[in-house]
Amino acid sequence: MTYCVGVLVKEGLVMIADTRTNAGVDNIATFRKLHTFEVPGDRVISLATAGNLSVSQTAFSLLTEGIEDTETGRMETLLTVPTMSKAAHLVGNAIRQVYAIDGIEMEKHNMSFDVTMLLGGQIGHAPMRLYQVYSAGNAIEATVDTPFLQIGEPKYGKPILDRAVTYGTSLVEALKLGLISMDSTLKSNLGVGLPIDILVSKRDSLAAGVNYRIQDDEPYFRDLRESWSAALRAAHQAIPHPPYTDGFL
Amino acid sequence: MTYCVGVLVKEGLVMIADTRTNAGVDNIATFRKLHTFEVPGDRVISLATAGNLSVSQTAFSLLTEGIEDTETGRMETLLTVPTMSKAAHLVGNAIRQVYAIDGIEMEKHNMSFDVTMLLGGQIGHAPMRLYQVYSAGNAIEATVDTPFLQIGEPKYGKPILDRAVTYGTSLVEALKLGLISMDSTLKSNLGVGLPIDILVSKRDSLAAGVNYRIQDDEPYFRDLRESWSAALRAAHQAIPHPPYTDGFL
Repeated sequence: MTYCVGVLVKEGLVMIADTRTNAGVDNIATFRKLHTFEVPGDRVISLATAGNLSVSQTAFSLLTEGIEDTETGRMETLLTVPTMSKAAHLVGNAIRQVYAIDGIEMEKHNMSFDVTMLLGGQIGHAPMRLYQVYSAGNAIEATVDTPFLQIGEPKYGKPILDRAVTYGTSLVEALKLGLISMDSTLKSNLGVGLPIDILVSKRDSLAAGVNYRIQDDEPYFRDLRESWSAALRAAHQAIPHPPYTDGFL
Repeated sequence: MTYCVGVLVKEGLVMIADTRTNAGVDNIATFRKLHTFEVPGDRVISLATAGNLSVSQTAFSLLTEGIEDTETGRMETLLTVPTMSKAAHLVGNAIRQVYAIDGIEMEKHNMSFDVTMLLGGQIGHAPMRLYQVYSAGNAIEATVDTPFLQIGEPKYGKPILDRAVTYGTSLVEALKLGLISMDSTLKSNLGVGLPIDILVSKRDSLAAGVNYRIQDDEPYFRDLRESWSAALRAAHQAIPHPPYTDGFL
């Protein structure tokens, strides 16, 4: 399993991904799932992957080695594509090529061709964008109404995002909320594990301002987990008792 | 879809269930899923159901009309069984009888025989207990280590329970946390909907102290939803910024 979340707010982009892969609960390993393609002053692009590891690694190789653009005949990578929408098409094409290479054979062995990716970033002074690309290579895009996208195990970490994240949320709050969302997932799904990789990019900075890995023993993340739990306890205790329990509880 | 949660704390039992059933998103209806069997001074038993509505309704009919105890030859209902463990067996037997009546035929039509139930309560002065009964009729029981059980759509509402509910949580806080857990689920899964049914029973009271339905427009539940969202916003804002964002955010 995997949990990755991307949040695109007015101030910029946050991408967070865990690093655990597992084939059953008795075979776990650590693999980076968050990748950054940065040319300072030109572009910053972040790619997070979930699903079958062989599919996502093969697609990632294609995206770094280059895929032919059928319109122009040029080989393109995420470091060369001219726009974010073309970057989303490139990721979709990479997934389709992996399907052509491995997908049909995988299905013969009852392995589902299962991959999803989050692609966020900015190229030049065109708008910053955040996409989710599916196994079929098609994509959806985050909007002002729904400024976050999740892949892998989305449910445990969704309530806090639903309640607190809007397009106007500041970038640092979006980061903290993403970390809380990750923590809720870590607590409930053993297939999601530390270390956690983070990318934060301010809109129009065209750079990865924060490109950081949270290790197992990091004091800030430990404190965030503890203070969040303490704050939740204080918050529910502050809510008045239901009127229909009067005289009984 | 459905969401039901049972919490068994030192002071007593909370059971909460929504009332929405759906076959697709274009066919929704309201059905009570939380049922109470009460003989004040003798027993209070609460049954919550999730899964296929025909299976749970047929099983519920058997539990009220009576099922033969193969050991004693007596017809038993939840109002007559002598212990909670026998009540859990009775619920399992009811499900097995429905499987014998309808399950095989349902599978011929590619309908899965899908049902789970929560059974909580107390009979006489034996301990209060909370069980989860599966489609096969087998059951697990809540313990001091894991004092809550969920059926239906568990994931959205689990993080708050994981963080805040322990066996020592007071009964009224367990109720509020159950309502917050329900609210998180309502926000994310359209297959879960108001009204919400609640049962609260104090340990050794042998009565349903609170047996209540929250309707769509109930002011307390609306206020709880709003104050919880406000408290979460205050809570994440009170967490310090990550040290690795210093000078950048």
